[in-house]
Amino acid sequence: MSRRLSLLSVIPLIGGLALSPVLGAEPKQAPLVIAEQGSFTAGGAVFETPGQYVNNAPTAQGQSLHGDHLYAFYQVPERPRDLPIVMLHGAYQSGRSWETTPDGREGFQTLFLRRRFTTYVVDQPRRGRAGNSAVATTIDAAPNDQLFFDQFRLGIWPTFFDGVQFDRSPQALDQFLRSVTPNTGPYDAKLISSAMTALLERTGPAILFVHSQGGESGWLTAIQSANVRAVVAFEPGSGFVFPKGEAPADMPSAAGTLKPVEIAASDFAKLTRMPIVIYYGDNIPTAPTDARGKDNWRVRLAMAKLWVATVNRHGGDAQLVHLPQIGIHGNTHFLMSDLNNREVADQVSRFLAEKQLDRTGRQE
Amino acid sequence: MSRRLSLLSVIPLIGGLALSPVLGAEPKQAPLVIAEQGSFTAGGAVFETPGQYVNNAPTAQGQSLHGDHLYAFYQVPERPRDLPIVMLHGAYQSGRSWETTPDGREGFQTLFLRRRFTTYVVDQPRRGRAGNSAVATTIDAAPNDQLFFDQFRLGIWPTFFDGVQFDRSPQALDQFLRSVTPNTGPYDAKLISSAMTALLERTGPAILFVHSQGGESGWLTAIQSANVRAVVAFEPGSGFVFPKGEAPADMPSAAGTLKPVEIAASDFAKLTRMPIVIYYGDNIPTAPTDARGKDNWRVRLAMAKLWVATVNRHGGDAQLVHLPQIGIHGNTHFLMSDLNNREVADQVSRFLAEKQLDRTGRQE
Repeated sequence: MSRRLSLLSVIPLIGGLALSPVLGAEPKQAPLVIAEQGSFTAGGAVFETPGQYVNNAPTAQGQSLHGDHLYAFYQVPERPRDLPIVMLHGAYQSGRSWETTPDGREGFQTLFLRRRFTTYVVDQPRRGRAGNSAVATTIDAAPNDQLFFDQFRLGIWPTFFDGVQFDRSPQALDQFLRSVTPNTGPYDAKLISSAMTALLERTGPAILFVHSQGGESGWLTAIQSANVRAVVAFEPGSGFVFPKGEAPADMPSAAGTLKPVEIAASDFAKLTRMPIVIYYGDNIPTAPTDARGKDNWRVRLAMAKLWVATVNRHGGDAQLVHLPQIGIHGNTHFLMSDLNNREVADQVSRFLAEKQLDRTGRQE
Repeated sequence: MSRRLSLLSVIPLIGGLALSPVLGAEPKQAPLVIAEQGSFTAGGAVFETPGQYVNNAPTAQGQSLHGDHLYAFYQVPERPRDLPIVMLHGAYQSGRSWETTPDGREGFQTLFLRRRFTTYVVDQPRRGRAGNSAVATTIDAAPNDQLFFDQFRLGIWPTFFDGVQFDRSPQALDQFLRSVTPNTGPYDAKLISSAMTALLERTGPAILFVHSQGGESGWLTAIQSANVRAVVAFEPGSGFVFPKGEAPADMPSAAGTLKPVEIAASDFAKLTRMPIVIYYGDNIPTAPTDARGKDNWRVRLAMAKLWVATVNRHGGDAQLVHLPQIGIHGNTHFLMSDLNNREVADQVSRFLAEKQLDRTGRQE
């Protein structure tokens, strides 16, 4: 209880209503007051097909394609804090990840808006509303529901984990599985980080929230853009970058082998410029298991720990919070939309306060 | 001027600030006050692959796919009017069509929220954030910028029409062309209208805004769902449905032949249950031309006129407003995001007021 009470100091007041950190206590929400909202695209390129365009007999000849941009929907609250939050989803997902939870509660888009952060919710290039890809692909309509149930650690299909922070109504699982949306072109982390860098030129200095596969683009964006003031990574799943010569060994698991990515030491050094926090949820084993969905995250958590140590050895400020170790149990891979997502948000708010990333310098 | 002044009576006040109907006059906007916002999916189905799912060696066998749903983002203002507005985009587009305009102003999503309507902005099944399709497809990355410039009546590439209601900065055209996003499965109007009907079961009675190809699903939804209280169609482009035996002849054009769709008289009769208004913009010729982009809309406007007459002959309440004929010039195919989109919104507000669709019965 003492930890919870201490959190209250960083919980903002909106319209006189405190946001409750208590699981399940959903106070009547005050209205959102939004100074401005809208959407736009950032990054990408224009791809020209040689030849002559004939207006009245059009073919590909002489035409261009605008593609490989990202899409962002933004909302600015009244009296915003100085740093906005840019939210990047993971694999098979879109900005939908940060919106309403599968069981119909507010996701991080709206929760952090209530906490007076401007939010930018991204669809990465070749995903969702940013679907125009410069490279053709096939949408194979492959069925993956059961794999996702295991891989995203709701349980071991068809059984939910005991105490899992996921609503067991069929409606919630239905909504969850319908947040899945395919790539409309090949996945390319560097392409994504370039578009993210273009977005950050527009937003100015910002806090980056990344989920799962978005971690890979997150690290690359934090290297490429001088505007990343912090990275908050929710279960980053791939693309852990290490300075050349310092990468750990490959990590085999029941779900395949996780390989570290070696980059130039000068690039890695840029990751020491900002505070970084990484969160992982529950039901991640420490010893190898043949349970594929769980073992997938065993190696990711293990490599993330080595990565944090490497960043800090080079003078950085990274930390890893394994939620069960601080008494927060039952989280799936989707920490930001789990039943206790307010409690997770409170953890993030505490981090942002500790690092003085939640200031409202211009207005207060 | 007298027409403009008469409009003032239907322009709502938000926070004491009148929305100006005057082109280019952008008052400092009052903050938006939003009681609730979020997103969800509606409709779709679950597609099962026969066989046995093996958790630790997953293949398609025994797995399912949740797909063919739509995605909707909604916002509820304070003191909402009784009927929400559901907005369905056209071909190659997503809900992005209704958000910020290419030149960075408020689109119909936010303009009608300011006018105290709850808004639902849809990505149709197999598009945008509703990308999971039950049927495989190929994304071909085809270049179409120049064709779209012509077809969406910005001008005749590379020349804008004189007086076109489109910002000529390169940035605006760039944003416009990046609102394009591909199908992630075959286009299927009946599938879309089924998902829309599921959405309307959740929203309750609603006003339907449809754009372009969305017109086809719009008519089908108005037939299928008893919750459609009005249809506001912006340049519907295909799928004009007529009672069997009453369809006009096919209409050839430089852009192909437009064919009417015959349906059962009992289904058509359902379109007489609600007021319908259709808007078309400028630069649509009345005589055939070899200018492909313009001629495409000549036949669509012509068939829409016959369609309106047919609805009214059967006892319905449909009207067609060809904007240049009431003194509103320069509109492209994207009426709702053109430079004069507030003036277009004022036309819609007047229609909704005339038909008593803008009441706030429960609160006032």
